[in-house]
Amino acid sequence: MRKNELRKTLAGGGTVLNGWLSLANSYSAEIMAHQGFDSVTIDLQHGAVDYPAAVGMLQAISTTAAVPMVRVPWNEPILTAKLLDAGAYGVICPMINSKAQAEALVNVCRYPPRGARSFGPNRAVLYGGADYWQHADEEILLFAMVETREALANLEEIVSVDGLDGVYVGPSDLSLSMGKTPTLDPQDGEVVSAIKKICASTRKNGKFAGVHTDSAKTAIRRFGDGYQLCTILNDARLLANAAAAAVREARGEMPQAAAKTY
Amino acid sequence: MRKNELRKTLAGGGTVLNGWLSLANSYSAEIMAHQGFDSVTIDLQHGAVDYPAAVGMLQAISTTAAVPMVRVPWNEPILTAKLLDAGAYGVICPMINSKAQAEALVNVCRYPPRGARSFGPNRAVLYGGADYWQHADEEILLFAMVETREALANLEEIVSVDGLDGVYVGPSDLSLSMGKTPTLDPQDGEVVSAIKKICASTRKNGKFAGVHTDSAKTAIRRFGDGYQLCTILNDARLLANAAAAAVREARGEMPQAAAKTY
Amino acid sequence: MRKNELRKTLAGGGTVLNGWLSLANSYSAEIMAHQGFDSVTIDLQHGAVDYPAAVGMLQAISTTAAVPMVRVPWNEPILTAKLLDAGAYGVICPMINSKAQAEALVNVCRYPPRGARSFGPNRAVLYGGADYWQHADEEILLFAMVETREALANLEEIVSVDGLDGVYVGPSDLSLSMGKTPTLDPQDGEVVSAIKKICASTRKNGKFAGVHTDSAKTAIRRFGDGYQLCTILNDARLLANAAAAAVREARGEMPQAAAKTY
Amino acid sequence: MRKNELRKTLAGGGTVLNGWLSLANSYSAEIMAHQGFDSVTIDLQHGAVDYPAAVGMLQAISTTAAVPMVRVPWNEPILTAKLLDAGAYGVICPMINSKAQAEALVNVCRYPPRGARSFGPNRAVLYGGADYWQHADEEILLFAMVETREALANLEEIVSVDGLDGVYVGPSDLSLSMGKTPTLDPQDGEVVSAIKKICASTRKNGKFAGVHTDSAKTAIRRFGDGYQLCTILNDARLLANAAAAAVREARGEMPQAAAKTY
Amino acid sequence: MRKNELRKTLAGGGTVLNGWLSLANSYSAEIMAHQGFDSVTIDLQHGAVDYPAAVGMLQAISTTAAVPMVRVPWNEPILTAKLLDAGAYGVICPMINSKAQAEALVNVCRYPPRGARSFGPNRAVLYGGADYWQHADEEILLFAMVETREALANLEEIVSVDGLDGVYVGPSDLSLSMGKTPTLDPQDGEVVSAIKKICASTRKNGKFAGVHTDSAKTAIRRFGDGYQLCTILNDARLLANAAAAAVREARGEMPQAAAKTY
Amino acid sequence: MRKNELRKTLAGGGTVLNGWLSLANSYSAEIMAHQGFDSVTIDLQHGAVDYPAAVGMLQAISTTAAVPMVRVPWNEPILTAKLLDAGAYGVICPMINSKAQAEALVNVCRYPPRGARSFGPNRAVLYGGADYWQHADEEILLFAMVETREALANLEEIVSVDGLDGVYVGPSDLSLSMGKTPTLDPQDGEVVSAIKKICASTRKNGKFAGVHTDSAKTAIRRFGDGYQLCTILNDARLLANAAAAAVREARGEMPQAAAKTY
Repeated sequence: MRKNELRKTLAGGGTVLNGWLSLANSYSAEIMAHQGFDSVTIDLQHGAVDYPAAVGMLQAISTTAAVPMVRVPWNEPILTAKLLDAGAYGVICPMINSKAQAEALVNVCRYPPRGARSFGPNRAVLYGGADYWQHADEEILLFAMVETREALANLEEIVSVDGLDGVYVGPSDLSLSMGKTPTLDPQDGEVVSAIKKICASTRKNGKFAGVHTDSAKTAIRRFGDGYQLCTILNDARLLANAAAAAVREARGEMPQAAAKTY
Repeated sequence: MRKNELRKTLAGGGTVLNGWLSLANSYSAEIMAHQGFDSVTIDLQHGAVDYPAAVGMLQAISTTAAVPMVRVPWNEPILTAKLLDAGAYGVICPMINSKAQAEALVNVCRYPPRGARSFGPNRAVLYGGADYWQHADEEILLFAMVETREALANLEEIVSVDGLDGVYVGPSDLSLSMGKTPTLDPQDGEVVSAIKKICASTRKNGKFAGVHTDSAKTAIRRFGDGYQLCTILNDARLLANAAAAAVREARGEMPQAAAKTY
Repeated sequence: MRKNELRKTLAGGGTVLNGWLSLANSYSAEIMAHQGFDSVTIDLQHGAVDYPAAVGMLQAISTTAAVPMVRVPWNEPILTAKLLDAGAYGVICPMINSKAQAEALVNVCRYPPRGARSFGPNRAVLYGGADYWQHADEEILLFAMVETREALANLEEIVSVDGLDGVYVGPSDLSLSMGKTPTLDPQDGEVVSAIKKICASTRKNGKFAGVHTDSAKTAIRRFGDGYQLCTILNDARLLANAAAAAVREARGEMPQAAAKTY
Repeated sequence: MRKNELRKTLAGGGTVLNGWLSLANSYSAEIMAHQGFDSVTIDLQHGAVDYPAAVGMLQAISTTAAVPMVRVPWNEPILTAKLLDAGAYGVICPMINSKAQAEALVNVCRYPPRGARSFGPNRAVLYGGADYWQHADEEILLFAMVETREALANLEEIVSVDGLDGVYVGPSDLSLSMGKTPTLDPQDGEVVSAIKKICASTRKNGKFAGVHTDSAKTAIRRFGDGYQLCTILNDARLLANAAAAAVREARGEMPQAAAKTY
Repeated sequence: MRKNELRKTLAGGGTVLNGWLSLANSYSAEIMAHQGFDSVTIDLQHGAVDYPAAVGMLQAISTTAAVPMVRVPWNEPILTAKLLDAGAYGVICPMINSKAQAEALVNVCRYPPRGARSFGPNRAVLYGGADYWQHADEEILLFAMVETREALANLEEIVSVDGLDGVYVGPSDLSLSMGKTPTLDPQDGEVVSAIKKICASTRKNGKFAGVHTDSAKTAIRRFGDGYQLCTILNDARLLANAAAAAVREARGEMPQAAAKTY
Repeated sequence: MRKNELRKTLAGGGTVLNGWLSLANSYSAEIMAHQGFDSVTIDLQHGAVDYPAAVGMLQAISTTAAVPMVRVPWNEPILTAKLLDAGAYGVICPMINSKAQAEALVNVCRYPPRGARSFGPNRAVLYGGADYWQHADEEILLFAMVETREALANLEEIVSVDGLDGVYVGPSDLSLSMGKTPTLDPQDGEVVSAIKKICASTRKNGKFAGVHTDSAKTAIRRFGDGYQLCTILNDARLLANAAAAAVREARGEMPQAAAKTY
């Protein structure tokens, strides 16, 4: 089976940059996968993407060395399994608030005897190789999103779940859950401290810590905090920001700092 | 019929910024149409877009005040007419190298007695109004692309064609046609002088002059030259540049000037 | 945030006509949105529509003043949240049979602290405005479908749920649940009386009452009963009836009353 | 090869009703094909339909006994041939203004030695049978649209072309070409007389005469004039008219005669 | 309502061959439906197919006499109900491990009073007829997949569930669940004996037994075991095997037995 | 720019096997590209494929080492240029019957000064590299289909055209053009001799000769004749043949030789 280079880098203590796709388009996916990201994640939760678009986007990413991942919309067995069958090498699952939920995620994504994933890889065999099923459980990365006050309270239990590889922080939802304004670079002390704590607990338990950011600057800061995987915005926001900046400049207005985005 | 605000501004001597869509996606089209462009053009020639995607993108643009235009792939009657029926308020047609070709374009796009456009607007009536057919010939903008040495030689004849509203310059093809490296901001003296001459001849004949550019800076310079409509790159290049810049910055490399792009 | 005109009208005691879309097509959606309905609802339960089609249809409706709503296929968190992120201004949820189910619906659709909706609006920000998240909970309309005998028994509890704005009656399912023939204009006494009772209880509790009908005539009758929102058939049935009537007439048969439809 | 029932009826002197599809949707196509039309024509000229949608719609029509036809966007070899390969049993080609154009149409649609159609039927073999290529030239119906003053002048020559089965009148374009208001039921004397003359010349030459109409009433009148094939509006207009009528009635306005439509 | 010929044959003790579709394509679906299978099943679990593709494929199958069935991705109410509304005449549901799960499946698929299926057939009425809802519960076939050790333990209870018509064995998952290598033709004694036992128990309880196989040879063997419905591979594997064999042969290698496939 | 391995092999005198795609599906395209073909050609003429599907299929093929080619539907400038921009590394153009037509093909596909291809590669730059435009004319393969009696008469002139790399024979159309039954393995003496002559003339002029075949057996024979590139059937026929054979075998009928196919 094709090795998961992302896992290799993370296991070696390295840091990785992750691209994020919310446009349902295989050409923009291929463009993004060519820009130097270590991995590219298709967002099926808040991105405007669903299964058939994701299949085409997985193919587009597979023309490059970037590792194809998906952010599933929910902790559920149908779409998650279909995306694995289609060749996703990593799953980021939102709203994992308890140990039981983390275990359910593992159960969906791992073959027996570790879990209850049903047998029937399709594209995954083309991308991963004929021995896909023998090694899938070792190669595919599973990240639980920790993004609520409840998850924070259950953090130690969540990161202890066997078969889970890491935690991915959604700063906007985490802020909102704590009664703060949603933002990808929270300045509120309680949220800032939660984001640091999540990283520390995760790594202490031998798991990988990832986080969504709003810019290269924030990503660099998070790497400094110990996060190993950082995402920068998404294709839609990168495009909107770039277009808006060009319009402002061409209209003779002063270029401004990019607006805070989700 | 809904007025074509782009024509109004151009006729009043104003300048306009045009967005350019090469991703076949109605969500990215809607994002682009919200960034402050006066018009947004769907590129069916070099963009990865075809008719059904263009229909959805025309709808997406129509949720905003930006004027919807299309760059058709060729001077031909089928797709051009379908895009007009679907509500395009402007047509930019590539490779118009002679008066006869410009007249053929007018013939396709104007109703009898001015031309031979067949009757059957569909979305155009929803977007433009029930009296669409009575006023379409006055509202819809037609631009001929002047982008070869041959077109340059025939420029005066081309811009004299009745029913044609303006000329749109493709600097890359023009450069290539002159044996130079294709680029959106040519520095070669012969090309630079051709770009200036096209603008002057076009405006002298009472037509509008538009041009493709690679940045706000180049657009500002072209406005200074007398061009009234400037396009800045396209969605795909804006996205690629923004993502590449973020990756470079996050990887600790120095931010660099955006690479010259097509 | 863009105001929800439907909510404003309903809150003012007014009545509204709602269009219903079961064809997965953004052009027919745009046609329907231009026919004078106050709102247009995309049916993802019994309509042949899924998420990507719905996004295009939301865009199409957004070219008009009609308020875009969705009938979700089930009381679940994935698709409902994606449709809200895509800009739906109203949700009609089938088969709400208990207070707990109504609360679950509210939980999915409202942001913390009212619910657990995850943060990440995409098209919703383009349609609603940059302050979407601050006001979404006040603008977006939530209707619970009351369409079973069980729901009828729990009606008072259901309509008391905070965050729920109204009730929408599905006469066919309600009839079937009561052991009667499914129809949009039931004549059976028990069903008739249930439909009246639902309206009365709903309005008494300060909520809005909506109902599906088979014709303008039935809608007018329901308005008389106190229902404030009435839907007339759907695009597929309107088309089928109109085509069948034309064929019958052209074949020399007498035009007949439209067949009772679902 | 499956017999073309439309040809059989027309050859026997019978009259047929034709449905017209401008929505790119295989479900609405299937609905239309179930309403009693003898044939259903997919409009790739003024309908919002292109090739892949048409393939799905041909399949949908093929679930019924209605004969599947296409109105191609232009007299050209690419799309026309692809639609024949996909199983269209009839072709209506717009803007045939001369004998040479009619001969070109025949050349595209007939196999050698009659024409130059390239060999490679795909769905056509599934729908028509394994002996499709031996009989396609006898079964498939070819209609030339006569819809300009020029075509009228060349009518006798056009209808004399071997391999052409009939003529189809587009009253809107014909009106416009004559300097009159485009409408499907022209009252102008010159147009009315042209429509009658086309039918007479066509039938005199042993060809079939078809025409687009705006209603069953007009169709009945045209049948009386000698036309054997009449189309009534299209799916989009039937839907728009039905929805608008329902809205008007529900809003308490008097039902009105359907607006004249294209 | 159109009769379900598959049910008729099975009830008469006959055997049937089932095709299996994992390519999201209505043309390949139509091709498969023409090859002589008694039924064709669209696989929405491990096939790369989702709802809108399935609708087009159901239409394609409906151009033939093959009975259209679906393998749903999970025992859940949303997609299953949508596929029934779209005209599926049979449902194969994976991972039914207990009586309660089998009852839940029946509840989703049968109308009141037998279950809780919501009323609103769309294509199903076109395919099945206007009286669809009165007879759907008698015509539509429901198969529970028995493919885990747990299901085996609960087999007698599962096959006793009223409203369930049969059992369908997934040999790969069954093998994996028993700790064996997943394969469609298991040689392991425990799995072989389980496959025989499932058939026997199912038929003893008056239900139909179906099974997935890897070849005509295995299917013939399973028919001999008492299975009445056998599937042979799927479209993707048939294509891959045929192409690989042609390449091997053309390259001068000896033709080899087809590789064991999933 | 990425080297065209197919050109390298052909230039070295080697032989290549080519796959042929007529299903509009990127998953089946990826499957085919994994079966060992040297190149895979997307058929936009007789395949049920159009531009947007082809883009996804080019991406799918690009996940493998197989060289992506297209068979365009016609000798025309629009779609051919779009497919090159999308990354096709080879073009097979049907119905090249004269030197002028071959020159027109070259003109469309080569950049100035060799031709008039417009500048604007999109996916081609991702697949080929940033220096795509400098080397595209040397890497991309152009094949003219010789498949009529007329082409045969003009063969020497056609193969002398500069910028054209080879000739591709369509045996079915060639047969039909000669008044014989269309088949991929003609036995008719005149056709057999024409196929041999085309190969000889082509190679004598230093061009590559390719041909469509119905089986590995025929391909091996053609390789023996001097053809360097052979295609075996297409995905649709491979699938149909494999399914039909499995059904026949499972029904206890004797396996038969595959039916002659197109």
